[in-house]
Order: sequence, then structure tokens, then C-alpha cells
Amino acid sequence: MILGKVIGTVWSTRKDENLVGSKFLIVRQLDLKFNEKDNFVIAVDSVGAGEGEIVLVATGSSARQTSITKNKPIDAVIMAIVDKLDTPNLSN
Amino acid sequence: MILGKVIGTVWSTRKDENLVGSKFLIVRQLDLKFNEKDNFVIAVDSVGAGEGEIVLVATGSSARQTSITKNKPIDAVIMAIVDKLDTPNLSN
Amino acid sequence: MILGKVIGTVWSTRKDENLVGSKFLIVRQLDLKFNEKDNFVIAVDSVGAGEGEIVLVATGSSARQTSITKNKPIDAVIMAIVDKLDTPNLSN
Amino acid sequence: MILGKVIGTVWSTRKDENLVGSKFLIVRQLDLKFNEKDNFVIAVDSVGAGEGEIVLVATGSSARQTSITKNKPIDAVIMAIVDKLDTPNLSN
Amino acid sequence: MILGKVIGTVWSTRKDENLVGSKFLIVRQLDLKFNEKDNFVIAVDSVGAGEGEIVLVATGSSARQTSITKNKPIDAVIMAIVDKLDTPNLSN
Repeated sequence: MILGKVIGTVWSTRKDENLVGSKFLIVRQLDLKFNEKDNFVIAVDSVGAGEGEIVLVATGSSARQTSITKNKPIDAVIMAIVDKLDTPNLSN
Repeated sequence: MILGKVIGTVWSTRKDENLVGSKFLIVRQLDLKFNEKDNFVIAVDSVGAGEGEIVLVATGSSARQTSITKNKPIDAVIMAIVDKLDTPNLSN
Repeated sequence: MILGKVIGTVWSTRKDENLVGSKFLIVRQLDLKFNEKDNFVIAVDSVGAGEGEIVLVATGSSARQTSITKNKPIDAVIMAIVDKLDTPNLSN
Repeated sequence: MILGKVIGTVWSTRKDENLVGSKFLIVRQLDLKFNEKDNFVIAVDSVGAGEGEIVLVATGSSARQTSITKNKPIDAVIMAIVDKLDTPNLSN
Repeated sequence: MILGKVIGTVWSTRKDENLVGSKFLIVRQLDLKFNEKDNFVIAVDSVGAGEGEIVLVATGSSARQTSITKNKPIDAVIMAIVDKLDTPNLSN
């Protein structure tokens, strides 16, 4: 999974009929010190994540393994909200 | 999903028999300020996207989860047209 | 899909038994002006592509969605031969 | 598979209901001399890996092929703990 | 598929129960002139590849399409040993 931060929302009216009601969030990748990277991914929310929250994103076919995303053309899903990282020996 | 912009069309006569009628569009990746990146992907259109439109592209097996792409050798599909991005705190 | 150019063939005698008869082609990635990139992929041909031809390559599980590649350990397939790109506003 | 080292744990209370009980570990990628790279992945543990251990991580749909991860929105799993690498001719 | 060279073996005692008996090889990526790249992947052998041999590696779900890897948490398999590349017009 990717570690990221929700930084916004994508508005879309015209989309695949199975995607009506899906919430597309913009997730910026983070390093282990929560610094934002340039990379981002658009992911569907399955856990009620809000802007500014740190999340995990599952990609590929695994993104379709939630009740919200099943059988839909979605390749990234927010499946967990991060409370904290425990990295006792992280230096750089 | 990838954020991109439709910048053209691929013409192909000789292709897998299941792809007859599929429309291949060239989608250039965008950053969150809609600047074009070097990367691009060829994606099948499932939502009536036209040149110049901002879109979302789903890749991998998820690209086959539309009525147009099901069971076809297609690894990227345009599944949403973007109205706007809402990124209130975007700085860089 | 990836835009590429067929630049050669891989010869292999010892391979998975399901791959006997599969033709492995070397496909170099192209940019939108048909300049060759450093990246390349080995792909199975499903459309009769020959050396020097511009092609589309589908990767991942989608590469197994042709009659030639079904259920085989193949992660890249040439599924279309490109006639031309139509990119009216391409600058850089 | 990716070669990596377990360097920490992700704590998450709010997550997909199928993920309750799953242990999310932070795995930093290694080169063949066990130097840490910048890249990391969050993976579910299926073999009892602990911090500091060298592991293999399988990604994508293959990450769901363990009894612990089956049918869950998980795209990376630790499926082996590495005893040692045998690379007799490694120079650089 | 990836072009690579077998440069070693991974020893692992503690692993997913379905992986007992699987042979994990270290495969370094090659360019088309057989120069070694920095990238490598750990792949399961399905064709009897030995150290120093040039091979093709299939990744993702396609890696599970051999009798040896079926239904296992494996995302890369050696499915062919390369005799030679035929690239008549290769310059750089």
C-alpha cells in the first residue's frame, strides 16, 4: 500500500454509470516523515477519509476488494486511515 | 487513477478482433495544476471524452470493468471526465 | 497501453510448455514523435506485427485477454498495429 | 518480489472491515548488499515477520494469495523471511 | 516481460506454506546489449534456469499462470530461458 495524505477532491459529472456516488479523492504520496512527494493518485474513498488525513491506498485489482468498489473501473482505494507510524530506528 | 488530458487519437486498422470499434485516445498525464507531464498513456474511451478534456484513467485489470472494455486486451480506460479539482491548500 | 516499435525478436527454446509457438518480440517505447526511449518490453505478438512497425502493447492481466495469450504466463501483448497518431496540438 | 527490511508498523483504527486484525508493516526496499533505498511499501504480514528482518514482498493480486489476505483490499504481502542471499559473483 | 540475468538465489526457511519447494532466484535486469541495470527482481523459477543464464520474467497475475506458481503469493516467474536476441538495427 501507498502512504498518502488526502489533499482534495475530484468533481466529475460524466463518468461510468457504476461510479455514480463514488467519491474521488486526491492523495499525495508521503515519505515516512510525512513530507509530501510530487506523486499523487486519485483514489476512491471506502472509509470516510477527509481532507488532511493520512491514509493507506491499495492499488490494482486489490482496489476492487471493498463493498464500495467491487466490479467497478477503479484502480485505487483508500482502505485505512493512519493513526500513526511506529518507526523506532528511522534516521534519514 | 491517473489525472490526464486527452491530446489525440490513435488510428489502428489491424488489431485484436475484440477491439474493433474501440476508440484509442492519447492521454497525457497532468499535475494538480493541469501542467502536462512527459508521460502519456493510450486509453480506451468509455465516457465520450473528447480532445482537450481532463479525464481520469483507470489502469490494469480495473480497465476491463466497463461494458465497453470487458474481456478485452485493454489495460487503460477513461472512466470519468473531470469537471474540476478542489484542492484548497495546494501550494507547490 | 504503451506506444512502441518492434525492434527485434527473442529466441527461446526452453520455456513454459504453454508458450511453445508464442512469438516474443522486443518493443521499444516511443514518445509521441516516434523517438525511441531507453525502455523496452518483451511482448507476445497477437496481430502479426513485424520489425519496424509501430504498435500498442497491453500489459498485466489484460495481456492474457487474446486467444493467443489466454491462461499463459505472459504479461505483455501486442494487440494493435498503429497506422498513425492524430495529435493536432502537440508542441513539445 | 521485492527485497526489503521491516522498519516499522502502521497503526490504523479506522479501516475496511475485512482488515481488522491485519498487521501493516513498513518495508523499506533494499539493494543486494542490504543497503536501504528510499522506496518503501506498506505490506501485510503473513509469516510473522518482525522489525529488522529481511523479507520478500509480493505485490498486486498475488498479495491476496495467502490465507490471511484472501479477498481483502491489500496489494502487498510479506510472504517470506530471508535467511540469506547467495550471489557469488556480485561486484557492484 | 522483463529481460534479465540470474545472478543468485534467495534462501528462506520461514515462508508461506504454499511456497515450500519454490526456488527464488535473483534476476538482474539487462538492457538489449546484456549490460546489467541496477534494478533486480526476485522471481520463482519454472523452467530450470541456472545462475548466469539470460531469462524472461513475467510479473503480476501472469506470474501465477504456470503449474509451479498457480494460486501462490508470487508476483514474478521465470518462464523462458533466452537463447539469443535478434535486433538487426540496434544502434544505441
